[in-house]
Formats: sequence, structure tokens, C-alpha cells
Amino acid sequence: MTSKRFEATYEIESPVGLERAAAVIAGEQSTGTFVRLASETDDLRARSAARVEEIRVTRISAHPSLPCRKTGESYERGIVRLSWPMDNIGPSLPNLMATIAGNLFELAETSAIRLIDLVLPESFARAMPGPAHGIAGTRALMGVPEGPMIGTIIKPSIGLSVEDTASLVGTLAQARVDFIKDDELQANGPGNPLEDRARAVMDVLNRDADATGKKVMYAFNITGEIDEMARQVELLERLGATCAMISLNWVGLSGIRFLRERTALPIHGHRNGWGLMSRSPDIGMSYTVQQKIWRMAGADHLHVNGLDNKFTEPDEVVMEAARAVQSELPGTKRTALPVFSSGQTVWQMGPSAAFLGNQDFLYCAGGGIMSHPGGPGAGVTSLRQSADAARAGIPVEDYAKDHPQLAEALKAFR
Amino acid sequence: MTSKRFEATYEIESPVGLERAAAVIAGEQSTGTFVRLASETDDLRARSAARVEEIRVTRISAHPSLPCRKTGESYERGIVRLSWPMDNIGPSLPNLMATIAGNLFELAETSAIRLIDLVLPESFARAMPGPAHGIAGTRALMGVPEGPMIGTIIKPSIGLSVEDTASLVGTLAQARVDFIKDDELQANGPGNPLEDRARAVMDVLNRDADATGKKVMYAFNITGEIDEMARQVELLERLGATCAMISLNWVGLSGIRFLRERTALPIHGHRNGWGLMSRSPDIGMSYTVQQKIWRMAGADHLHVNGLDNKFTEPDEVVMEAARAVQSELPGTKRTALPVFSSGQTVWQMGPSAAFLGNQDFLYCAGGGIMSHPGGPGAGVTSLRQSADAARAGIPVEDYAKDHPQLAEALKAFR
Repeated sequence: MTSKRFEATYEIESPVGLERAAAVIAGEQSTGTFVRLASETDDLRARSAARVEEIRVTRISAHPSLPCRKTGESYERGIVRLSWPMDNIGPSLPNLMATIAGNLFELAETSAIRLIDLVLPESFARAMPGPAHGIAGTRALMGVPEGPMIGTIIKPSIGLSVEDTASLVGTLAQARVDFIKDDELQANGPGNPLEDRARAVMDVLNRDADATGKKVMYAFNITGEIDEMARQVELLERLGATCAMISLNWVGLSGIRFLRERTALPIHGHRNGWGLMSRSPDIGMSYTVQQKIWRMAGADHLHVNGLDNKFTEPDEVVMEAARAVQSELPGTKRTALPVFSSGQTVWQMGPSAAFLGNQDFLYCAGGGIMSHPGGPGAGVTSLRQSADAARAGIPVEDYAKDHPQLAEALKAFR
Repeated sequence: MTSKRFEATYEIESPVGLERAAAVIAGEQSTGTFVRLASETDDLRARSAARVEEIRVTRISAHPSLPCRKTGESYERGIVRLSWPMDNIGPSLPNLMATIAGNLFELAETSAIRLIDLVLPESFARAMPGPAHGIAGTRALMGVPEGPMIGTIIKPSIGLSVEDTASLVGTLAQARVDFIKDDELQANGPGNPLEDRARAVMDVLNRDADATGKKVMYAFNITGEIDEMARQVELLERLGATCAMISLNWVGLSGIRFLRERTALPIHGHRNGWGLMSRSPDIGMSYTVQQKIWRMAGADHLHVNGLDNKFTEPDEVVMEAARAVQSELPGTKRTALPVFSSGQTVWQMGPSAAFLGNQDFLYCAGGGIMSHPGGPGAGVTSLRQSADAARAGIPVEDYAKDHPQLAEALKAFR
């Protein structure tokens, strides 16, 4: 690949063979039409056509994986890598997606098609803002120079009043969490309007910070319309808040980038809806691709689920996602912060750190903090102790011998 | 359903039975956590919990349709309808999506899950802008009071210079098309920058309108960042353009709504990427839901593919989509304009009109116009003749007897 082309890799199954399928996609997604036009000159093709870079057959099956208008005697499956000239689109994320993830998932030449990887020229990534804060900036704002950042999510997800929320935030701040977030279901409904919630919560957290010298980061869910989000980040900044959260898929790429440029707050990126894109082996887009797009648009924190979670995602996929979020975008040194959540306790802390080889992550626990027998403060302490054990290379059960909060947590959440 | 709740319907397959799966989703997507908290009071549940409205088992299978962390002895499949209180989110499309299409596609209690329908209270739809122009407004801008609007797409999709594009537009205007659009791959790249393209194309179309009294509508692809799109619609309006196009999935919901409120131009909504969401029977979201969301956000024109198309979508689904796009949103009389495209010729015109029971659609043809033996003008005439035949209830072959352009087209595109 020259530095002037971008590449997308797909897993494809086809009733007409991978070679034909690859050619059709390359044509459809660049200069071709189903009948070649006279105006599709050689010169134009040289300038703008997509190119098939690689085809690798991995499997042949007798039946199509998805319903398909075309049928074949058998269905070839494997990897197809295509490239496009950068000049087709310029450095634009929404237009990149229209090219690599546009009108191709429904082509009758495919009986399965999944976008699994994306490689961009450095010039593209350099033209993107990327995360403004990432890991280092988030640590600085939270006052957590090392070790995992310990966070939690307001529960019940929805239904609490502003006063209930502020009171729970007070309890969690006293427990010395580093981070608290709205649930993604907690929007700006009449029972708990964002503006009132932000005032009440920041009142608690600002007072706590005055007393302790450390401000707990709270990610307020500002998912909404463009003008609405612009007003809300202005309010949050005025109130001394240090984080804004959005539902990435539903605000959309242009909205993420807008926020990145409009606010100095880190953007806590909630990936809800990603399973729609990623879960099937036969259609969609891997999280490898999704997280890269979102980091380029400016997301600072990205959810990756957690080990041994309540969802259907296997542990390998969770850890691959966390690694991907921590990886550098070409041309920038800023890396985003992976956020573990979903049934996380002291048990998954060590394995998460071991797999990543570092503790540069946000570890969100709910029950693992609130249901600790010694109360939320002991819950947070036990999580920090499990991280200390991992850092010291001591098995967590050994470390628990002279760390009672950890010992209690290991027992309670076994 | 009371008027204060919104409802989503899913097709679900589950290793733990539909009843359990429905309860888990309802809990996850509203007040519940995997361990019930003391703070999840009865009062809070009454106020905010999702409710299971209907469960209907349609099938039992021996194997899971998607890879799944949980396994069952068998997998129950069927329809699940859930409802939520409007007050959980307020009238917000991005937050609606986080609730009905958020962290649920990956639940281990489902081995298939597809969002297939959505019913909103009138108060929600009324709070949305909806299409500013829709069918009637688009007809007025195009000067086409009745019959289908005849359109075409610039091809090759990408690679033409500004001058090539303007020259092709001249040819198409002389052929008396009503509508021309950029391909969704034609972004704002250096080979054909939007600003230059808009100036050159509108120069041709404004002169043509001065001469003929009718301005061809051109949909310029402005897909991009928020500030960029705001600048571009301003330019387009200044140049006398009458339509702006965006890739709906990649600009995102907040971006669509932003444009709806920022510009007086109709929004030509390109659905590329929809197949990623819709193609699998086991995961995703039906186009019924997608188009409804986009219309509420403000899209005026929505692509629905065409009968006998080159993609894998069956004809029934195409026509259902077209009908859905034409349906009224509760609380508003404005309906959006369905756009047929993909290999459309004189042959699919009659069946399309017959199925819809009206001619309120935009019919985009490429080869069907450019490859007519009598040239593009004859191509457009033949398409209008096929619509006239349909309106008169005369079989197209009979009508062709004294309409030579139609006769030629029927032969050429048989």
C-alpha cells in the first residue's frame, strides 16, 4: 500500500466466488457501474478505482450464511482486502464510512460480509483531531497518576430523581471512587433533567474536591441534538464538571467531531448499539474498526465490556478491544482510555491488567463496590488492593492475607 | 399502550426462553441491574420500568442462530413487544435509540435479536421536525405537479472532474430529467471539490432554468462535519441549488436534525450502510424502523432500492419500504418521498406505481436513461410514457404501439 491509499479488510462469503465478489465490491464502491460506461476511461480508473489487494479463501460451504438473491453450487469464504485512493474522499470520516461500509452489505454477490479491519494513511489520521485528553489527560483531571482508575455507574440506570442522584454521588465520593457516570439510559427526561442533575451533582463534587483536593470525574450523558449538546457542555464547563458522555452511534460521527472541537471536556464514548454491528460473524463491522473511527473523531474513553461479563462477548474479544483502544493512531501519541464494565469485581482486576500489560484503564464496578460487606469505601479500597497485588506480581489470594477489604471482597464476589 | 409510552417490537431467539429474555431486556434497558438493588423501589419501577407487552413464540430450533455465551436445550424464537415510559427520555431520537437499540443486541440471553417495529406516542412525533418538504414540497421545487419524478445519478460514481460533471449535467438537463444526484461516493475530495462542483453545476442548471422555466433539482452530497455542512448549505442556497444530500448513517441522527433546522433545502437522505443493519434475519434493525427515525429527524427523500434490483433485497421488502416512507408520521401531514434506484428501467415503472397505488415517488435510472437507443432525451421520455401507461391503466406493451421511445426502451432493456 502506498501512503496515499486507505485499505479495508472484509470477511466475505460468496455464491459467485471471492474473486468475482471482490471485483464487484471494488467496482460498486468506486468507479464502476453494472454496465461499464464509455466515460469510465482508463485514466479515470487509474485515478479513482478501488483495487483488490488480497484474496484468501479459508473455507467452502454448501449453504449460504445469509439469505441471498444469487445462489451458487458452493459458497467460498475468506478474506478480501481492498484499497482506495485517499483523493476519492479527502480526510473525512463520514465519507470514509460511505466508501468502506456503504452500499455493499446488501450486494447479491455476497452471502456474508463483515468489515474487519481498516488501515489509513498517516495523512488521514493526522488530519483527524483524535482524543484531546486520552489516558494521560484523564489521569491528570482525575488526579490518579498511576494504577487503574476506579469508577462506577449510577444505578438504577433510570428513575432516580436529581436529589437521589446527588445523594448517591455523595456516598460514592466518600468511598473515594475516581469516576462516576450516568447510565446511557439516563438522558434528559423530565424526571431528572440534565441541567438540574449537573448542578446538584457538581455541587456535591465541588465541595468534596474543596475538602479532599481531588475532584471525582463525573461523566454526564449529554446525548442529544447538536445545539442542545453545545449548550450543555457550556453549562458543564461553567459548573466545573470534567467529563461529558455521549452515545456514539446515535449522536453520529459528525456530532462526535463537533463536540471534540466545541468543548475542552474529555468525551466519554458509550458504544451502545455496537452489538448490532459486531455480534454476527456474517454481517457487520468489527469493534476494531468502530473504535478506530471513534478515536479519530475525538472520543477519549471507550467502553470495551469486561472479562467474564453478562453479555455474550468472549473474553478474547474484550481484551483485543481494550488493546485496540490503547493503541496509537498513526501520527499521534494520544491513546484513548479503555473502560471495563459489566459485573466487574476484584476477581477480574488482575487478569485485566495482566492481559493488557499495564494499568492504564478505567475499571467500572457496580455491585463490586456497593455490595462490599464493609460498604462502598471498603469496596473501592478492595479494588485498589487487587490492582496493587497485580502490580506487585503477588497472587490476589496471598495479598488478601494482610488486606482485609480485599479478603472480604474475594469471598463476597466469588 | 397509553399515549405516554413508546413501544419497540423485536424478533428474538433465546437459549433461556422468550419470557426470560424479554424480562432481562426490559430490566437491562430500564431500571434493572443484574442484582436487584434496594434503591430499585416499587415506586421507581412503576415510574420508569420497561414493560413486557407481548410475547409470541413462533418457532423452536435445536441450534442457536448466533454464537452465544449461554446455551439451551432448545432455542425459542418469536416476537417480543416492550414498552417504556416517554418520561424516561423525553422526545429525543438519539436517546430513543440508546433505549430501544442500545446495549441489548449482545445479551447472552438472546441467540438472535432484531428490532422490527417502533410505535411512538403522537407527542413524540409532534416534537420532531419531520420532513420540511416531503412529497408536496419536492414536487413544487421541481415543477412536477403529478406523475413520478424522473431522476438519475452521476456516473461514474467517482473520478469525474468538475468540468466533466457539469458537462454531463448539461446533457441530462437537455434530456429533461427532473432530478440529478451526486453518487454517495462523490464527497468533497481534491479531484472534484464540492464548492467548485456546486458553482459549475448550478451555473448550468440556472441557465437551463432561465431558458425553460423549470429548474432541475440537483442533490449535492454534503456529507461531512457539522461546521462544514453548515457552510455548504449556505453556499448551495446562495447558488440557487434546491437540494442537499447526506449519508444518513455516517452523519448521524444529531447531524441530520442539525441540517433540518439549519437549511431550507430538502434533505436527500442516502441510506448507505443500511444493509449492515438490516440484511441479517438474526441481528439488527428493519428498515421500517430506520426510515421512521430518519423521517422524524427531517429527511425529505429516502432511498428504498428498486424492484428487481442488483442487491439481495427481495421485491416485497423494497415495496414495503416505499410504502413505509410514504406513510404519515403521527401528528404531521408531511410524508417523505421514496426514491427508487438500482437498475431501474421502463419495465419496473408500472409495477412500482401499481404496488404503491400512486406515482408519488422519485424514479432514478442510470442506464435506463443514458443507454436508450435514441439518447438520454428519449430515455427520459420513455420513462414518462411508461408512467402515463400505468396511470391510464393500459399495459405498457400496448401503450408502446404509438409511443416509439417507450417501444425502443422496452426492447433495449428487456
